[in-house]
Amino acid sequence: MIGQLNHVAIAVPDLEAAAADYRETLGAKVSDPVPQPDHGVTVVFVELPNTKIELLHPLGEKSPIQAFLDKNPSGGIHHVCYEVEDILSARDVLKGQGKRVLGDGNPKIGAHGKPVLFLHPKDFTGTLVELEQA
Amino acid sequence: MIGQLNHVAIAVPDLEAAAADYRETLGAKVSDPVPQPDHGVTVVFVELPNTKIELLHPLGEKSPIQAFLDKNPSGGIHHVCYEVEDILSARDVLKGQGKRVLGDGNPKIGAHGKPVLFLHPKDFTGTLVELEQA
Repeated sequence: MIGQLNHVAIAVPDLEAAAADYRETLGAKVSDPVPQPDHGVTVVFVELPNTKIELLHPLGEKSPIQAFLDKNPSGGIHHVCYEVEDILSARDVLKGQGKRVLGDGNPKIGAHGKPVLFLHPKDFTGTLVELEQA
Repeated sequence: MIGQLNHVAIAVPDLEAAAADYRETLGAKVSDPVPQPDHGVTVVFVELPNTKIELLHPLGEKSPIQAFLDKNPSGGIHHVCYEVEDILSARDVLKGQGKRVLGDGNPKIGAHGKPVLFLHPKDFTGTLVELEQA
């Protein structure tokens, strides 16, 4: 079912400092900050040859990553995103196996303009998993 | 400096259950458990088309992931590993920028038979970063 690792998302308390770590210290190709008000985050994309790292910082008052940063004030790895060919079929297979889809169970349009779903971390050994239609 | 994302490591309290999640539920290619007594872990490798997920479970009494699982009993994403062409040169550049290398500062032979180093999470916005010679 899952294909490529689309990205690893890292929640950070200081987006500029984190971007500098990746751009200057680790020498990676790093984007400017991209505000994504619909998702409650500002994102810096780190492009690696085989996948992406996304540095996430809260945007607005109801950011979905604020609680994570409250628990992990230094920041930390927030989720992994796997690509699937057909997100509705993937959702139905997962639900049939008793896995919980977050929210109302319907895909939303994610940060890359494609449908995404999040799966309950307790159903995947503590890892928040995002699925994105490839 | 950094090249490909070599792997994402996820610490799990139940290796069999986590392997089943990836093999059966997510339909990925999953290895048998590989005990790595030198590293204090048993590893299940999940092969994705562009990178790997490594499911880690403590092995022995001084496992380096036991403290993480004590704090995160459901499991969670433990570290990311980036490839570098020359690990000694990478180490020296990082140390020159004030970044802390864990342990005695010398690379050890990692799970893939190549030299690796770990960098202090507090120097990388809360993320434990492993560097592996490509």
